[in-house]
Amino acid sequence: MTVLVLTCEEDLTADMVVTILHDRGVPLVRLDPADLPGRVALSADYAHHAFHGYLKADERMVSLRSLRSIWVRRPGTPGTRAEEQSAWLATEAEHALYGMLTCTPARWMNHPVAAAQARYKPWQLHLAQQSGFTIPPTLITTFPSVARQFAATHRDLVVKSVSGKHPGEPPMVLPTTRIGPDVDFTGVAASPTLLQRHIHKQADIRLTCVGGRLFAARKQADPDEVDSRFTQNAAWKPTEIPDTVRRSVAAYLRLAQLSYGAFDFAEDREGAWWFLECNQGGQFGFIQLDTDQPIAQAIATWLAEEPA
Amino acid sequence: MTVLVLTCEEDLTADMVVTILHDRGVPLVRLDPADLPGRVALSADYAHHAFHGYLKADERMVSLRSLRSIWVRRPGTPGTRAEEQSAWLATEAEHALYGMLTCTPARWMNHPVAAAQARYKPWQLHLAQQSGFTIPPTLITTFPSVARQFAATHRDLVVKSVSGKHPGEPPMVLPTTRIGPDVDFTGVAASPTLLQRHIHKQADIRLTCVGGRLFAARKQADPDEVDSRFTQNAAWKPTEIPDTVRRSVAAYLRLAQLSYGAFDFAEDREGAWWFLECNQGGQFGFIQLDTDQPIAQAIATWLAEEPA
Repeated sequence: MTVLVLTCEEDLTADMVVTILHDRGVPLVRLDPADLPGRVALSADYAHHAFHGYLKADERMVSLRSLRSIWVRRPGTPGTRAEEQSAWLATEAEHALYGMLTCTPARWMNHPVAAAQARYKPWQLHLAQQSGFTIPPTLITTFPSVARQFAATHRDLVVKSVSGKHPGEPPMVLPTTRIGPDVDFTGVAASPTLLQRHIHKQADIRLTCVGGRLFAARKQADPDEVDSRFTQNAAWKPTEIPDTVRRSVAAYLRLAQLSYGAFDFAEDREGAWWFLECNQGGQFGFIQLDTDQPIAQAIATWLAEEPA
Repeated sequence: MTVLVLTCEEDLTADMVVTILHDRGVPLVRLDPADLPGRVALSADYAHHAFHGYLKADERMVSLRSLRSIWVRRPGTPGTRAEEQSAWLATEAEHALYGMLTCTPARWMNHPVAAAQARYKPWQLHLAQQSGFTIPPTLITTFPSVARQFAATHRDLVVKSVSGKHPGEPPMVLPTTRIGPDVDFTGVAASPTLLQRHIHKQADIRLTCVGGRLFAARKQADPDEVDSRFTQNAAWKPTEIPDTVRRSVAAYLRLAQLSYGAFDFAEDREGAWWFLECNQGGQFGFIQLDTDQPIAQAIATWLAEEPA
């Protein structure tokens, strides 16, 4: 049984996992969907009430039936390295590849359907509530009057992107920005805006979940800092996970049908963890570098497990 | 409890259903996501462990809690009628709207996650096999040699788009084209290609499924015609549904988690139905016009049902 890794060529995080799988002797095919058609080829045959699919990457051929797991890391867009590119080709190649792959009984980290749903932050927040996490009071609105009222109630706010990423090339991550209650909210009418009560945090928490294995890391926060992704500061250190958080994580991942998730929390001055988001494709390399937590090993183990 | 209809302004098929719901006194909000932000506004508030969302369309306000059902007909892309358009705004508006809507307990026709999966034709064919339908021998490939071998085996073929639609503005539907075994398959390497054994059909069958209600229509085929969508010919007439097909439809819709599906079959000279595809958003107006089958009424009834 083979592990399929879908990612772009330059992906050091994927390299960490691929190296471990190689060392363990686990058969593996790594390919970038951007190379279909070209270095990547495929075929799916429906005959005699059965489906046979296979993929070829460089000179490796793999039957879809022999896939034990599929890791969706940082895949390129199908068709985008073809000699003659077009939106038409991209759509055809995407439907052929992912349409075939979703016919396999392989385990996914994460399944594209679950991943698409899990990217919606309004849904993440709702699911977090249902799973028993504590979330900061949050508003997503296009009504300036509602934004004003929320600001008057909560006073100290942050504003965030609803979707998380600016769709540029390369994509930009927009920083979370702290605002006071007296800003002009007129512009809210022009774009849905996410406002959240600012949590006075003493630390950032990143909780990386691989199947049922959890790795929590904590980083002391500068009291004046809002978004620590944009500053050089303290190192991440391993930390204990409260039992209530363990239970909520299990509920969240089960409801979202995710096998991997990177949760971000703000730890307040009383030590409580406030759910901020769960990134189903979140990076883990920087955490492993700081903490030595064996996250790549856990992913390799999950991917290499024999199907039940 | 309110029905939410997501569709563009000019949609005669939606008009049929909306008129019936109005006549039955069912509360209804119809909006086009393209009008967010602008004529459509939204707000979602997460506080005290609960989620409150509401939508405003023109001057109608509706709470997401009061939605009994959501009909995704022909929605525009969020953000695309805003004064200042951008890819960024489109992404933010899409995440805000669909992220909020997928938090509701409303019933969907069809849920966006199920719809996205159901559009993959390679998956449709596999699901059809699993559901007990008979499908024509089919190949999706980028290997010219495999295409040649398939052609040599089956001789009389059709070639189709894998994804179904050319992504132009307006989108084009590409006709299914009949080919012989001696065509040059070299070009297959440049784009995944779907080849299918040609079924010598005596009729086209369109089976429209609304929840558990099935409406089958049959149209006599010209023996020389391959793709009847592009020709003016016989009218659609109601027809009986074989029991085996009923069972397979039920299995397919359950596995795909669809509440609506438009199945296309080719009826061969022995009267057997060959599964061609299931379009989760397929049109039904033209069938209802020809056959007087009450499909719009069935959709209205499904949408108006009280949640269990």
